[in-house]
Amino acid sequence: MQSKLVKDIKEAIRLSGLSDGMTVSFHHHLRNGDMVAVMVMDAVSELGIRNLNVNISSIFETHEPFIEYIRDGVITGIETDYMGGSVGRAVSEGILEKPVIFRTHGGRPSDIISGASPIDVAFIAAPTADPMGNCTGKFGKSACGSLGYAFADAMYAKKSVVITDNLVDYPLVDFSISEDYIDYVVAVDKIGEPSGIVSGTTKITKDPVGLVIADYAARAIDASGLLKDGFSFQTGAGGASLAAAKYLQDIMLRKNIKGSYGLGGITGYMVDMLNTGCFKALYDVQCFDLGAVESIRTNPNHMEVTAAHYASPTAKSSAVDNLDVVILGATEIDTDFNVNVHTDSNGYIMGGSGGHSDTAAGARMSMIVAPLSRARLPIVVDKVLCKSTPGNTIDVLVTQRGIAVNPLRPELSERFRQAGLPVVDIFELRDAAEKLNGKARKPQLGDREVAKVLYRDGTLLDTIYNVPVK
Amino acid sequence: MQSKLVKDIKEAIRLSGLSDGMTVSFHHHLRNGDMVAVMVMDAVSELGIRNLNVNISSIFETHEPFIEYIRDGVITGIETDYMGGSVGRAVSEGILEKPVIFRTHGGRPSDIISGASPIDVAFIAAPTADPMGNCTGKFGKSACGSLGYAFADAMYAKKSVVITDNLVDYPLVDFSISEDYIDYVVAVDKIGEPSGIVSGTTKITKDPVGLVIADYAARAIDASGLLKDGFSFQTGAGGASLAAAKYLQDIMLRKNIKGSYGLGGITGYMVDMLNTGCFKALYDVQCFDLGAVESIRTNPNHMEVTAAHYASPTAKSSAVDNLDVVILGATEIDTDFNVNVHTDSNGYIMGGSGGHSDTAAGARMSMIVAPLSRARLPIVVDKVLCKSTPGNTIDVLVTQRGIAVNPLRPELSERFRQAGLPVVDIFELRDAAEKLNGKARKPQLGDREVAKVLYRDGTLLDTIYNVPVK
Repeated sequence: MQSKLVKDIKEAIRLSGLSDGMTVSFHHHLRNGDMVAVMVMDAVSELGIRNLNVNISSIFETHEPFIEYIRDGVITGIETDYMGGSVGRAVSEGILEKPVIFRTHGGRPSDIISGASPIDVAFIAAPTADPMGNCTGKFGKSACGSLGYAFADAMYAKKSVVITDNLVDYPLVDFSISEDYIDYVVAVDKIGEPSGIVSGTTKITKDPVGLVIADYAARAIDASGLLKDGFSFQTGAGGASLAAAKYLQDIMLRKNIKGSYGLGGITGYMVDMLNTGCFKALYDVQCFDLGAVESIRTNPNHMEVTAAHYASPTAKSSAVDNLDVVILGATEIDTDFNVNVHTDSNGYIMGGSGGHSDTAAGARMSMIVAPLSRARLPIVVDKVLCKSTPGNTIDVLVTQRGIAVNPLRPELSERFRQAGLPVVDIFELRDAAEKLNGKARKPQLGDREVAKVLYRDGTLLDTIYNVPVK
Repeated sequence: MQSKLVKDIKEAIRLSGLSDGMTVSFHHHLRNGDMVAVMVMDAVSELGIRNLNVNISSIFETHEPFIEYIRDGVITGIETDYMGGSVGRAVSEGILEKPVIFRTHGGRPSDIISGASPIDVAFIAAPTADPMGNCTGKFGKSACGSLGYAFADAMYAKKSVVITDNLVDYPLVDFSISEDYIDYVVAVDKIGEPSGIVSGTTKITKDPVGLVIADYAARAIDASGLLKDGFSFQTGAGGASLAAAKYLQDIMLRKNIKGSYGLGGITGYMVDMLNTGCFKALYDVQCFDLGAVESIRTNPNHMEVTAAHYASPTAKSSAVDNLDVVILGATEIDTDFNVNVHTDSNGYIMGGSGGHSDTAAGARMSMIVAPLSRARLPIVVDKVLCKSTPGNTIDVLVTQRGIAVNPLRPELSERFRQAGLPVVDIFELRDAAEKLNGKARKPQLGDREVAKVLYRDGTLLDTIYNVPVK
């Protein structure tokens, strides 16, 4: 029996030819439970390799050790679609000389496939793999479901290394990524912390404000003219978004509407919509909870899709192109409907586009659900600190004080009004938000570029500047 | 709803930009029932496009109209892995100015992916598709099961056109090839003749000579040392090969041997071996009969693999690399164990390598099963007319008169003898064949190159010359 198994990560790194100045890549399906990216960087550092560019589909709190590797010059560049907590704060304070490159979940595979963003060595955290590198996220103690974001890395990197904690005999049945793309396989004790990989279950909000917003959102979808047989839908995993999905499901069941597909990061709520006949299929690029993992493993109508199939703007088409409605969040939205999901009110990086601007561009109706204010800070502002998603792709903002419709979509205003929904001008919402909390105080930012935000087509959308350290 | 549907094949051809001198491609999963390749060439011809290079994974009798298009200068080049009947005869008689390029089923995707064999427009016959081009062979009135050979075409052609006779609503559940690779979709009444797509069931031989050979073959596999838990296996769909598989299954069940995987073109016999626990998985690049189609549709352990995953020599690995035993046929085999599967005794092209030399190269034991003679012509000869598979990759020849083992594998001879099997020298088999039928008469061939046989790595293995027309 042939085998690509090598004894440890260091051996795989040596064999891959990784050296100073190259680009490594990681996927984020293990989310805040991921141990692989740091494990690999530990080995890289011990081998004395420096000056690496890290292309990782998302950065979570679990990747906090990156900060030390940035300080030490092991990591000198970061390309990502999302950057949470500690690393975001350090980057905002200027730890990295080169600006971070932010892409979208669709723009990332697009640039990897086109060669605009080449990868030297991809490290694929795989919950189950065989010794030739056939692998899947559906099985194993670290099961995460879909491996959608990892396909472009595996297929287009010069060398691809699978790292697994559940090595099975060849050949793996029901593989996702196939051996023809994989160079080396490493077996380790543990690739992830299960509690961080998937939340046990994602939860609907119980907050009364969130429930009002969810109710408006579901009714707006109902009134939009889009909710009919064949309806397709994506929603985030935030509490209000999930509540909106639940209310929407109630409407679909009551009206016996047979939708076509649910898309995106998938939760147990979307699985429940599949199982109750609201959709005939789920196209799943990432599983958010155990219900989704169980479903993708067992239900053939719940299918894994690659990130390119999900959202690449240069693919011949992608699933976002046919999306009817997407519900999205925002940390800020301005009166031009531009949305910020990258920075907080102090200008610190604490997020990223993920699939935000991809789905907003593709969907027939993109809907932001957000309260007027959070922690005494207005959400609706004159101008967002960072333009993550262009306002001309955002159609509707739903708040507890009413629904603002982008002037580009007058027909939606009309339909919402006819349905008795409280349509308001976005300037009114801004005023109400300011009245509640006072005018948003713009943070004083420095003049060093710490991140560049690329739109899904690769053009520069915005630049994020450093937060001066007091 | 977006759609890539265009009104007919001509419209798809126009939109694709196809013009004189370009390369079009087709797959052969519809086998002798395929109507798509001719349908497309009819449209091409009517549009006045000429001088096309046709890259098609196999040519069957159904493609006989190609001859007229060659005469008319519409088709001026052919690249294929197999060429049957009428087209082979015409090519052998010199109808085509440029030599045909023969590849293997593994070499073809390898050269498409590397760019050595570029495709301008791929036409994908799809038994089921949605309007965005997600498609599969598993469902529909023209169901053919796996679409393994079509992936490289769809993924790497400049333009890819899906042609279906079962258009379903978006999104297709359980797709094989995904929309991100597809430019246009055409719906037609009928893509294939069901009786030609899959034989109702492939049949075991009843010929006593074939059964003797099959019995020797199964016992030789048993004696080889390879038949143990984890055993992997491929066999062709010829009557003696299938009988050997059946005998092998009996042995495996009796000895309670749990194999790993069955590979290749899959028949109902291999499905039966899966279902009785002889294998844990089937990796299926092509379905040969209805039993295989039904199984790949319903059994998650029966998986579609791409041609690259099956057999590409430049993939990082392929399934043939871990194959224990393959049973193959031959039209001729010489005393150096070189095998001819391209030409008949008159020098006419009537076949091709398919996966022959790929599996022979990969398998730990490659076994030719063949009678000493067919239609009064000896099978074992001094020198094959065409070297399709190099003798150093063929380990064993099984005939009704005994088993000849390649001198490169003395340990196999020893094991077979110990098991009481009739091991004979290949020269004895040649002599016996000649004694039965007289010495093989070499046909008088011309000096025009009508085909070049490329080995799986792209090197020239042999050249086929024209058969002079009397």
